Amino acid sequence: MFIIGERINGMFKKVGAAIANKDKKTIQDLAVAQVKAGANALDVNVGPTAEDPISAMEWLIDTISEVVNVPLAIDSPKVPVLEAGLKKAKKAIINSTTCEQAKMSTILPLAKKYNVPIVALTISEKGVPADSNGRVELAANLVANAMELGIPTDSIYIDPVILPVNVAQPQCFEVLKAISECKMIASPSPKTILGLSNVSQGTKQRPLINRTYLAMASAYGLDAAILDPLDTELMNTMITADLLLNKNIYCDSYLEAYKKV
Amino acid sequence: MFIIGERINGMFKKVGAAIANKDKKTIQDLAVAQVKAGANALDVNVGPTAEDPISAMEWLIDTISEVVNVPLAIDSPKVPVLEAGLKKAKKAIINSTTCEQAKMSTILPLAKKYNVPIVALTISEKGVPADSNGRVELAANLVANAMELGIPTDSIYIDPVILPVNVAQPQCFEVLKAISECKMIASPSPKTILGLSNVSQGTKQRPLINRTYLAMASAYGLDAAILDPLDTELMNTMITADLLLNKNIYCDSYLEAYKKV
Repeated sequence: MFIIGERINGMFKKVGAAIANKDKKTIQDLAVAQVKAGANALDVNVGPTAEDPISAMEWLIDTISEVVNVPLAIDSPKVPVLEAGLKKAKKAIINSTTCEQAKMSTILPLAKKYNVPIVALTISEKGVPADSNGRVELAANLVANAMELGIPTDSIYIDPVILPVNVAQPQCFEVLKAISECKMIASPSPKTILGLSNVSQGTKQRPLINRTYLAMASAYGLDAAILDPLDTELMNTMITADLLLNKNIYCDSYLEAYKKV
Repeated sequence: MFIIGERINGMFKKVGAAIANKDKKTIQDLAVAQVKAGANALDVNVGPTAEDPISAMEWLIDTISEVVNVPLAIDSPKVPVLEAGLKKAKKAIINSTTCEQAKMSTILPLAKKYNVPIVALTISEKGVPADSNGRVELAANLVANAMELGIPTDSIYIDPVILPVNVAQPQCFEVLKAISECKMIASPSPKTILGLSNVSQGTKQRPLINRTYLAMASAYGLDAAILDPLDTELMNTMITADLLLNKNIYCDSYLEAYKKV
């Protein structure tokens, strides 16, 4: 599974303070630790409170790029911040567009212009659909829009939006179905991704719920996840799920072998 | 998920010794602990070395029945031992028949005669099929045989036989597919079950592999598992998977709530 580390986000107090104080060490330590733990890419989000979000994004990318060389998932609801990140990063992923017409018209062309993968949340003007069919319908419409622009279908990461289990419990299974059904939208298949930790938002058993749902989603073909790679038990679950799905070859030290790759 | 506790098995040294010494306390402690941890039924297996396996089975059932009142899964490859158990137990499950013609002819009639659920392993005269289709084909043939005898299809627990991941890694996903496909064999659907711990046999990460695979199999609709309910993390994974599949209603103390049921 392709792992995007979620920790460099200004929403987290420590990271927000590091951005405000231009504290490189805190950011670089988080970057190195996440990659060492198995992250294949890093999310970069300046948070809601950054005073000058464009220069905060540029500073974050420069700071991270001094110590690691993985793709950076440029995570901002503000288009100018997003584009500043895309210009700055050597390898980038757009995180994210929704399936709202206005968003797609603005952000899909950026994926084409910068030739980068894009995460697309199945959210329309009406919000998040209640079931699998509604999610897949939005994803299909987005993929059609992307194809018209010449964006390769397998550089689209559909995120069927997992809601917290304590808020929308019946939808957890709908999202599993959506993961498997999104594969059938186009050939080559779009990829699927989840912002995993949302499933446990507001619950008392966050790590347990996160890792159990990750194993379930893996079994339905999830390609990627935005998660906390510093949660060792979560990463061990992910590596073990990959093993059981025959993506890595078994050896007694398969957990350590994964992290050394 | 319906949980059959696997711990009362003469194959385990402590249990084998308790059977040989007619040590009721060891057996009764294991029975009570497993039920308290959430087992819905208990496997009862005298082990390969019991001197007089029929009277060992009868003694085990009497001993267990003094302290708990759950169904007992009578687990023996020997038909006379199996039948002795069926006669003795107040509520029983046959564990198990295979799909071999000779086995089915002998053991399916016992399920009818004693009117009890039966576990059926998808093993033929040629062994365990390499893929999902082979497993489902055997299961369909077994279900047809059972229907001829008037056995209700939903009292059959198909076990698609998970092999150790270090021996037959590509089959782990095939078994997931078989779990979901077995549901389509008849209406009402036969149930599905796994002897879970086999997936990790001979590996160095047994609990992690067991619980990760259990979450995956749950997501594919697994109805029951034979496992160690005294493995708390495994049970927490099972309870959380049930939650994510909307089988229990979320509350902050859902783990404790489950065990009190």
